[in-house]
Amino acid sequence: MESQILMTPNTSAPSAPQFDFNAWMQEQLQRTEQSLSLWVGVNAPADLGEAMRYAVLDGGKRLRPLLVLAAAQAVQGLPDAAMRAGCAVELIHAYSLVHDDMPCMDNDVLRRGKPTVHVQFGEARALLAGDALQALAFELLTPADDMVPPAIQAKLCRVLAQAAGAQGMAGGQAIDLASVGKALDEQQLRRMHSLKTGALLEASVAMGVACAAVTPPVQQALSRYATALGVAFQVVDDVLDVIADAATLGKTPGKDAANDKPTFVSLMGLDGARSYANVLLQQALQALDDSDLPDVRALSALAHMVVSRSH
Amino acid sequence: MESQILMTPNTSAPSAPQFDFNAWMQEQLQRTEQSLSLWVGVNAPADLGEAMRYAVLDGGKRLRPLLVLAAAQAVQGLPDAAMRAGCAVELIHAYSLVHDDMPCMDNDVLRRGKPTVHVQFGEARALLAGDALQALAFELLTPADDMVPPAIQAKLCRVLAQAAGAQGMAGGQAIDLASVGKALDEQQLRRMHSLKTGALLEASVAMGVACAAVTPPVQQALSRYATALGVAFQVVDDVLDVIADAATLGKTPGKDAANDKPTFVSLMGLDGARSYANVLLQQALQALDDSDLPDVRALSALAHMVVSRSH
Repeated sequence: MESQILMTPNTSAPSAPQFDFNAWMQEQLQRTEQSLSLWVGVNAPADLGEAMRYAVLDGGKRLRPLLVLAAAQAVQGLPDAAMRAGCAVELIHAYSLVHDDMPCMDNDVLRRGKPTVHVQFGEARALLAGDALQALAFELLTPADDMVPPAIQAKLCRVLAQAAGAQGMAGGQAIDLASVGKALDEQQLRRMHSLKTGALLEASVAMGVACAAVTPPVQQALSRYATALGVAFQVVDDVLDVIADAATLGKTPGKDAANDKPTFVSLMGLDGARSYANVLLQQALQALDDSDLPDVRALSALAHMVVSRSH
Repeated sequence: MESQILMTPNTSAPSAPQFDFNAWMQEQLQRTEQSLSLWVGVNAPADLGEAMRYAVLDGGKRLRPLLVLAAAQAVQGLPDAAMRAGCAVELIHAYSLVHDDMPCMDNDVLRRGKPTVHVQFGEARALLAGDALQALAFELLTPADDMVPPAIQAKLCRVLAQAAGAQGMAGGQAIDLASVGKALDEQQLRRMHSLKTGALLEASVAMGVACAAVTPPVQQALSRYATALGVAFQVVDDVLDVIADAATLGKTPGKDAANDKPTFVSLMGLDGARSYANVLLQQALQALDDSDLPDVRALSALAHMVVSRSH
């Protein structure tokens, strides 16, 4: 996340100020961390709250909350709803990592440079912490204080539940499990990733959009942006899994190859995968252009960041 | 569930027909099974859908859906919302059993007379199926077709998420984990059960109530009913764990004592626990009386059933 990306405005207005993406991002990250710290694992009994906070706080790139907040900003969505949505989708992501790392799944001991939750707290508590984080995501989306209109609350829950469940992330993980040792073709690999990783990234953008009332063409353009970005994210992930070391990556590299899991690199080669990531970036940027929204600079910069990231 | 309970109407109207609880229950169970079969694990990839359906269908007493439907009927709540709520709370219950049975938790191999999900499908798929069931619960509560008003959708998600999470069921399980081998006093035992089991039973009633607009006194009376019923359920569970055999119970009996877990029986003795269950039943019935609702016969019969059940 160290890349310095200074974007010129997407509009042709000559007087629009230059957009400082890094300043924007730092501000959003700070607000997100504050909100997560306020909301996660507070007053939970036994060590459950500690395990939940360990799983969520002080780690992670927060790509999904940034996507929610950038999309909400692009459509001028309700800020309170957007922050809740950003944190909720991050909790779903965090819980999936906790469960994915467990011995019966990927059996990983290192995550974001720290021992994984089950190593630190035991398997039973890791299982429960993941379960509780998923519930908390939906709790965050449904505050009783009416700061977020019920129609937006319901829509956010709908989008997140669909993306997290059997037709989304959990379904993709099931395909992933079933695919170990099999040679998937590109179509099958795409389907697996579109569910396992793409669904939650696409939901992030859709949840940001759901924080305002927008026209179908705008919704569709941002949906195309999200789809391209979701695939690009996975392609780059596969590239990094090959070329990066554990210190940079914050997790054990080369695991997919070691487990004989299919990846975009095993399918297209390293250079092919890199080229493909750039094609996807252009598709994402084109979709933003198509949206005709006045300010998509944060979304544009996030797409650049996803493709140029080093971890 | 074979007990024949014929209730006279709670109202003093002499012309009110006798309430056939068993006919009512059979009808609700049939509708619930049909809905679950329609909604659970359909089109899920790999074997995930099969594991989800295995965990949910053809088993279980469906006490929670029955409570939702009975409460909704008492307040004349929206039937579509009530059926979704009933199935959603059952999915949360079912997922908790799948995860609870896993080797890192209770390591149980028998549930409802069948091999547990992880025995049948492997641990990884059991973990994912549980995760997907939780997401599906919130998906069921948020249909896009506007048959359920957004305000009710949001309220149902709020109640269920709170009951499932760290301040509810998952929190109770964490206390349970931490309590193995410890002598809990009555207050601590109550707190554990009020979260682990009571929260979801109370949420069932609250979700039924949320399907209509009711006055605070009615809501409070039904909340007192639910609290008493929740404790009674656990007391009877502890009694059955001591006196029933595996064939009747559908799961391994005597596990709590074997694991040195505190129970109401270890605390109060068998007779003491049985008397206490009857005191709680009277409290629940009194709360129904206090509600002044015209038809609480199904709720009343369910309370009797919980206390007199043999499995």
